Amino acid sequence: MTVTRSNPSAARISASEIAQLVKGELIGDGDVLVSGFSGIKEADKNELTFLSNLKYEPLLLDTRAGVILVPRQILCPGKTLIRVDNPSLSFTQVVNFLLKDAPDHRPKGIHPTAVISPGAKLARGVAVGAHTVIEDGAVIGEGSVLYANCYVGHGAHLGKNCLIYPQVVLREKVAVGDRVIIHSGTVIGSDGFGYLPVDGKHMKIPQVGTVVIEDDVEIGANVTIDRARFDKTIIGEGTKIDNLVQIAHNVIIGKYCLVVAQSGIAGSTKLGDHVILAAQTGLVGHLEIGDGAVVAAQSGVSKSIKAGEQVFGSPAHPMQTALRNNAHIQRLDKYVEMIKDLKKRIEELEKK
Amino acid sequence: MTVTRSNPSAARISASEIAQLVKGELIGDGDVLVSGFSGIKEADKNELTFLSNLKYEPLLLDTRAGVILVPRQILCPGKTLIRVDNPSLSFTQVVNFLLKDAPDHRPKGIHPTAVISPGAKLARGVAVGAHTVIEDGAVIGEGSVLYANCYVGHGAHLGKNCLIYPQVVLREKVAVGDRVIIHSGTVIGSDGFGYLPVDGKHMKIPQVGTVVIEDDVEIGANVTIDRARFDKTIIGEGTKIDNLVQIAHNVIIGKYCLVVAQSGIAGSTKLGDHVILAAQTGLVGHLEIGDGAVVAAQSGVSKSIKAGEQVFGSPAHPMQTALRNNAHIQRLDKYVEMIKDLKKRIEELEKK
Amino acid sequence: MTVTRSNPSAARISASEIAQLVKGELIGDGDVLVSGFSGIKEADKNELTFLSNLKYEPLLLDTRAGVILVPRQILCPGKTLIRVDNPSLSFTQVVNFLLKDAPDHRPKGIHPTAVISPGAKLARGVAVGAHTVIEDGAVIGEGSVLYANCYVGHGAHLGKNCLIYPQVVLREKVAVGDRVIIHSGTVIGSDGFGYLPVDGKHMKIPQVGTVVIEDDVEIGANVTIDRARFDKTIIGEGTKIDNLVQIAHNVIIGKYCLVVAQSGIAGSTKLGDHVILAAQTGLVGHLEIGDGAVVAAQSGVSKSIKAGEQVFGSPAHPMQTALRNNAHIQRLDKYVEMIKDLKKRIEELEKK
Repeated sequence: MTVTRSNPSAARISASEIAQLVKGELIGDGDVLVSGFSGIKEADKNELTFLSNLKYEPLLLDTRAGVILVPRQILCPGKTLIRVDNPSLSFTQVVNFLLKDAPDHRPKGIHPTAVISPGAKLARGVAVGAHTVIEDGAVIGEGSVLYANCYVGHGAHLGKNCLIYPQVVLREKVAVGDRVIIHSGTVIGSDGFGYLPVDGKHMKIPQVGTVVIEDDVEIGANVTIDRARFDKTIIGEGTKIDNLVQIAHNVIIGKYCLVVAQSGIAGSTKLGDHVILAAQTGLVGHLEIGDGAVVAAQSGVSKSIKAGEQVFGSPAHPMQTALRNNAHIQRLDKYVEMIKDLKKRIEELEKK
Repeated sequence: MTVTRSNPSAARISASEIAQLVKGELIGDGDVLVSGFSGIKEADKNELTFLSNLKYEPLLLDTRAGVILVPRQILCPGKTLIRVDNPSLSFTQVVNFLLKDAPDHRPKGIHPTAVISPGAKLARGVAVGAHTVIEDGAVIGEGSVLYANCYVGHGAHLGKNCLIYPQVVLREKVAVGDRVIIHSGTVIGSDGFGYLPVDGKHMKIPQVGTVVIEDDVEIGANVTIDRARFDKTIIGEGTKIDNLVQIAHNVIIGKYCLVVAQSGIAGSTKLGDHVILAAQTGLVGHLEIGDGAVVAAQSGVSKSIKAGEQVFGSPAHPMQTALRNNAHIQRLDKYVEMIKDLKKRIEELEKK
Repeated sequence: MTVTRSNPSAARISASEIAQLVKGELIGDGDVLVSGFSGIKEADKNELTFLSNLKYEPLLLDTRAGVILVPRQILCPGKTLIRVDNPSLSFTQVVNFLLKDAPDHRPKGIHPTAVISPGAKLARGVAVGAHTVIEDGAVIGEGSVLYANCYVGHGAHLGKNCLIYPQVVLREKVAVGDRVIIHSGTVIGSDGFGYLPVDGKHMKIPQVGTVVIEDDVEIGANVTIDRARFDKTIIGEGTKIDNLVQIAHNVIIGKYCLVVAQSGIAGSTKLGDHVILAAQTGLVGHLEIGDGAVVAAQSGVSKSIKAGEQVFGSPAHPMQTALRNNAHIQRLDKYVEMIKDLKKRIEELEKK
């Protein structure tokens, strides 16, 4: 099998140009040229890399990378270093700079096989890939790109400069802001899971609300976000959602949250701003999660959480409590021995 | 960004007409007209709302809703109320009534870009959206609607009046009953996960069975239901499955079950009728889950469950046991203090 | 509703031919003919079945199957048995033999609605289903079959004799080996979930690496495998991945692993060969999981695991420790009684 090279850039940049770009301190040969970027173990002499975690400092000696972005205190004779405050951030800046001129393989224009209703409104600069379907009344903002095989339902709104990867479904009437990125297989606006018990059967409750995705949100692959029963399910500005996440009807997520892979939020729960849900967490419905709260991985949250609080466990408890309880559980064997020992000694005492 | 209004209805209905429709008791002005519906906090004066949970009774004073469906015992002077036995159910009845005349944006007819094998049989009234593919030998029952970008495999059967949202995959030979709703991204009939160890490698076991979805089932978005190794994976009549659920090969689910988001059921496990699996539960293979059993959220079930039993935890135990154990875990700190105290006191006694 | 028969084979084989094929010992009538295969409970007299688990031996008396593959020690007068070392493996051999001549409903040739860039290279014998899109620079190896509605991105490579079911997305530049099977709804090469905190917002880190899927891998439905930040996310030769699994950026999975449904592996974690992750497990990032390690269902792994080790629980501990702790938890009620009893007895002693 053939593996294509991961660094698509053909642009070249010298160490001194990089130092200037990231406002870093150059140590070594400023004329070294790099044309790609890679991890510290894998990089070759034509590539830029970085060291962000001091734990990995020993790797610095062995890297073949031409130029290395490092924290301010690092020295490594014989290597071309650029010292910066935040090597990871600076690396991203350089990567973005190099990619600026990389070939762009996104769809361009409207593919002739796309099926676009005459009643849909596409702003200028919109690109639509092959076989994508855009229904009547849909509105697509300037500069937005939809890859192949997507579906945009009746009356759905998509803002400016969005990037919608292949096979995304935006159901009818959902509203998506500007600069939103949605990855493949994601479904926005499926019906919420709502039934009423009637004579031992489940009667469907119409789900006639919608979903609002605010500006600068990114949503991973195969995510599901249900439309509200009525009103709106909302994903707040700048929030980032990882793959395979489930957001139920009427959930409201604040701004700049992170929802990591395979987490699920049940109906009508409300997250504040800057909340972090680690991977595989579950939140029951109708909770309030305060600003900046953090839920550790695999936790199951059944009570509201105050701003800034960290919780862990299933059922979740405040982090310190959960860690203490887990530590006790690890020592149960010892405690049981202690109890048995005490029992024996009491029996001894009682005999006397 | 623009947000479209969530209430698509243009029909209007008076409070006294609503009272008649739901057989409720009208308190207040029967001539008040509403043309939409919304939550108690969000509704405006042209909208109907409801109060089902007495916990939220204080919201009644502040709601702007024109008409409110309330439990029989409620009074709130100055508001137009309709007292009913089950406000949530009555609300759904009115919503369905108002939506009856709402514009219908489902696909109509056969879209010219759909690829339908000459050997497929479509009953009258079937609608097929753009780019949907229907293979040879497939049968689609009267009145069923398939949205865009779906795939119906060779010899698959779909009953009457089904609603299949965009990008659903029905693999070859699967059989779906009448009035079934399947949401986007769901895959019915993928191969079961079955291998035999041969010389340290995994030899694929052919998965040549199928999947049967009985009448009145609803299946959420991005669900996966594997075909049987041989024979059938079965989803029983009236069962409702939420988003991102995994149903393995040869699983049999009874009638009127609820399987909440991100749950997974391993191979050959059999659920009775009216079983509830809360969100993110996992069931190992080859279990028998009795009628009416309930599995609490995030539980991991490794043993069969009797009819009517409720279980919780990972590993799951009967609800009472699980709650008692969790309560003990919360008090471990105290117990450890007690043990240490007893130890000291015994040492004191031993000294004497 | 109509249910199609699950056994598509029209070929017939006699008991003595089966015995010869699987090198088994025939007991009974060698002339019995079967033309299908089914489970021991469901099989009829024209079908082959097997008994692999001695627990189910009583079913042997009641089965209507024409021929039964059984372990060497089994006897059941009146039935036509074939005794073999591994009935499940032998059954698979016969099934494969019967299916050899079964009608093949895979796509053939290039469907006229497929959109294939003139810059894509398709080897001979490649089949592409309706509405599938193959972008510029993509390479598809000899004998590979892509079903309908798939997307193959710019410069992606697919090896020989692969089977890609409907609605799979291979993003740009991903590299897939030979004989790989990918089920519907799966997304390979979506962006990794990587952001840098900048002024309280999340700045996207470009994900410019790729994904490498080695030979003989099978990947279930609605799986997500993210491309590396740079470099490669790798799925090793012969590894099998079940439905709804999440593989984050820069994960490296070794050869012949099994990753069961709804498991998730966070960024940069590295699995050795022959690792088994049971269903719904979660692994945090940057771990090393040794060859042959086993993670029990629903476990949450936050520390590296040595070769051959088995772990369980959330947080996960070595299997023996986890089982012991769980047993202690089940007995907490009793321990608390013991503590209270000891306290009373000490108080008695102290009074004296």
